[in-house]
Amino acid sequence: MRALLLAAAASLSFAHAQGIPEDVKETADMLMRAGLEDRVGYETVEDLTTEVGARLGGSEAEARARDWAVEHLKELGFTDVRVEEFTMPYWERRYEYAAIESPFPQELEIIALGNSVGTPKGGLSGEVVRFETLDDLIEAPMDDALKGKIVFVDEGMTRTQDGSGYGVAVRKRSGAANEGSKRGAIAALIRSVGTDKHRFPHTGGMRYAEDVEPIPTAALSFPDAEQLTRALERGSVKVGLDLAVKTKRQVTSGNVIADIKGQTDEIVVIGGHLDSWDLGTGAVDDGAGIGITTGAAKLILDHIEETGEQPLRTIRLIYWGAEEVGLLGAQAYAEQHADEMDKHAFAAESDFGARKIWKLDTRFGEDKLGLAREMVRVLLPLGVAPGNNMATGGPDVTPLRARGVPVVTPRQNGWDYFDLHHTADDTFDKIDPDELAQNVAVYAAMTWMAANTPGGFRAEPAATASE
Amino acid sequence: MRALLLAAAASLSFAHAQGIPEDVKETADMLMRAGLEDRVGYETVEDLTTEVGARLGGSEAEARARDWAVEHLKELGFTDVRVEEFTMPYWERRYEYAAIESPFPQELEIIALGNSVGTPKGGLSGEVVRFETLDDLIEAPMDDALKGKIVFVDEGMTRTQDGSGYGVAVRKRSGAANEGSKRGAIAALIRSVGTDKHRFPHTGGMRYAEDVEPIPTAALSFPDAEQLTRALERGSVKVGLDLAVKTKRQVTSGNVIADIKGQTDEIVVIGGHLDSWDLGTGAVDDGAGIGITTGAAKLILDHIEETGEQPLRTIRLIYWGAEEVGLLGAQAYAEQHADEMDKHAFAAESDFGARKIWKLDTRFGEDKLGLAREMVRVLLPLGVAPGNNMATGGPDVTPLRARGVPVVTPRQNGWDYFDLHHTADDTFDKIDPDELAQNVAVYAAMTWMAANTPGGFRAEPAATASE
Repeated sequence: MRALLLAAAASLSFAHAQGIPEDVKETADMLMRAGLEDRVGYETVEDLTTEVGARLGGSEAEARARDWAVEHLKELGFTDVRVEEFTMPYWERRYEYAAIESPFPQELEIIALGNSVGTPKGGLSGEVVRFETLDDLIEAPMDDALKGKIVFVDEGMTRTQDGSGYGVAVRKRSGAANEGSKRGAIAALIRSVGTDKHRFPHTGGMRYAEDVEPIPTAALSFPDAEQLTRALERGSVKVGLDLAVKTKRQVTSGNVIADIKGQTDEIVVIGGHLDSWDLGTGAVDDGAGIGITTGAAKLILDHIEETGEQPLRTIRLIYWGAEEVGLLGAQAYAEQHADEMDKHAFAAESDFGARKIWKLDTRFGEDKLGLAREMVRVLLPLGVAPGNNMATGGPDVTPLRARGVPVVTPRQNGWDYFDLHHTADDTFDKIDPDELAQNVAVYAAMTWMAANTPGGFRAEPAATASE
Repeated sequence: MRALLLAAAASLSFAHAQGIPEDVKETADMLMRAGLEDRVGYETVEDLTTEVGARLGGSEAEARARDWAVEHLKELGFTDVRVEEFTMPYWERRYEYAAIESPFPQELEIIALGNSVGTPKGGLSGEVVRFETLDDLIEAPMDDALKGKIVFVDEGMTRTQDGSGYGVAVRKRSGAANEGSKRGAIAALIRSVGTDKHRFPHTGGMRYAEDVEPIPTAALSFPDAEQLTRALERGSVKVGLDLAVKTKRQVTSGNVIADIKGQTDEIVVIGGHLDSWDLGTGAVDDGAGIGITTGAAKLILDHIEETGEQPLRTIRLIYWGAEEVGLLGAQAYAEQHADEMDKHAFAAESDFGARKIWKLDTRFGEDKLGLAREMVRVLLPLGVAPGNNMATGGPDVTPLRARGVPVVTPRQNGWDYFDLHHTADDTFDKIDPDELAQNVAVYAAMTWMAANTPGGFRAEPAATASE
């Protein structure tokens, strides 16, 4: 009987130690309500997209974005703001041009995929061979049938709330060129990885496999992919392609970091990526993430100023650099902070637009799932449902996740995200201020709880050992 | 009593002579039902937009469109097909480029307006002065305030079912350059005449007033107009503009005409315009009109072939050339057919997209309004309501209307027409085949009634005199 009581007491005390303290939840609730009224997040996106505009990783515009960011954060009252530079290889488009040469001469709307090589000077032309899916190309025999031809992978993308259509469709972005090249093709075209039906080709990064000859590769807009398909239904089609790019071996980029100091040396990371593709002004990708996490951090900063209440952990707001071109800022951060990886208690990147958050995925220790439930319970009034424990945390926290840092993904409604993603149409006017404010509310409350929950979110070594 | 009876008999006989004969209505009804199943109209748009694509008035592409049209019409079974050529001055864009130079360097998405002059070689740059509406610019004093500046007319356009927002908004297309130039401006920018929020600038024709120095003029897409406005809210903005065009004094264009011979020398005209702007593939503007009227004429052709029933009047299908650049085909037609204007009994152009027709406006003799009511009664099952008697008949029937030819406008739902109008996004995939078929049904039935109603639609000289 005594043993049982002791065990019960231990269990109670354990549960208490693991829980989110009531006063922390109360502050979270207050931050949440303030978040719904927030305009700092929205105005941050407005300022960034207006005063900088497009900001390709490694470009002079991205450098201007870092200057803007440091000034903006200081203006908002952040005192511990710095840029952590890194170097990177650089790629930019100069121009691209495509046209059906025969039998129906007309221009096609294309965009070079990031990292594509250019065509030989003066362009190239070849007969187009269409594949309904990337798998159809992968299954094509390794004979001479594609030699000297242009492969066209016409695979579509499924519209989903959670963005799960992207992973399937994006394979062709590198796959078309790599699989085409292996079979002797001279160029590769793809139907854009996107869900809209407008005449916007979607760009995006691609990588050549090590064993293939790089061939130029570009995406067609939806209407142009349809047009090329209709032309092919009528017989053989010859397309001309002229594409020029510029590369540099080494340029400077950087991550912009603002810390709100905590009582301990543990760190909670939130942020978005500062760079964008070169076509739109990077509003939903990822001005929104910058705005959402800045709005949230600013609410916490104001709370601390008002109350003098210092968080348990340091809250670190990161604007990652050069995300689109290969998570280069994220890698640099992981390298530059390698010796404090075990001090990182929690991380989340907002990089999926500005629509409402509808559930919270986590990647916590299995023994810490009670904390996820508690967090969701607090966020429930915002319409946030419980998620799974397989969160990725967002692209730029990948290196942190790989090193065992607990991460969360507040899942946003991505129904129309891939309408705009990586297109010229990704502009500020597409953002709904109230939906963005809901994100600020979630991030503010969640970050406060993450920074003030004793024990943290990693599996307890003792607890794991005892199982 | 006898007088009364005679009067009644006369009135009955008069009503009978004026009415649409029952058998004509029956055939119209049959054509209507066949129209709803029609695919010739839709496939015509598909073929034209795929096999020719964009086809600017006077261009080599427009010439290919005429070749395509003659072949297409002959394949459909039209036997009396011809091209009536005319000459015209030619304008085409070479390139356009605009960027905010300071304080926030970034490119702006613009498109030169048709007929604009180019900038001096190497471009120009100037401070931007924004006007909320064209009227604000018109009311601006004739002093030096705009000297050396770029005027920016930021007037929006109202979305309406009947397209009535266009007439208001389109004034700025010529007005910005003309009013700006009068006040010493070096260039004029406008917010696109359109209702979408995408990054598509809308082109369209403009004309310089005779007494002004022509200055280059271009349209900004919706997001870019918003962006420029936001930049201006932050202070003085300098924009660079580089715009090059090519003009020729005289090139050849033409109208393509197919006749279905009638029993008399009277003519009923239907059609659309064959040319398009150079940006999209001219699907809704005006591939749709070509498709709709071709589908309708083909149904009538098939009916005649099956029954041997020749219409009272000749049904003339016209594909007008060079509409967008100033109704040049329409003017040429009126000149070339000047001596048979009084033989033209009825005319209608379909040039407002491919959405459903919801009412029928007419411009008949006041004593012939009973015929309009009878027509609408037949078309009612298709959702066509009675309209007014102030129809314009469509842009290319303007010269016919001016010469007293009765016209009708089957009014289409234009709710989203100006989302696509004159943009790169005007492509085949935007057309709903069932909505287009409803148009074919209306045109087939209406054209048959127009071609077979004794007495026609002009005011009767006798009747008018007796009133």
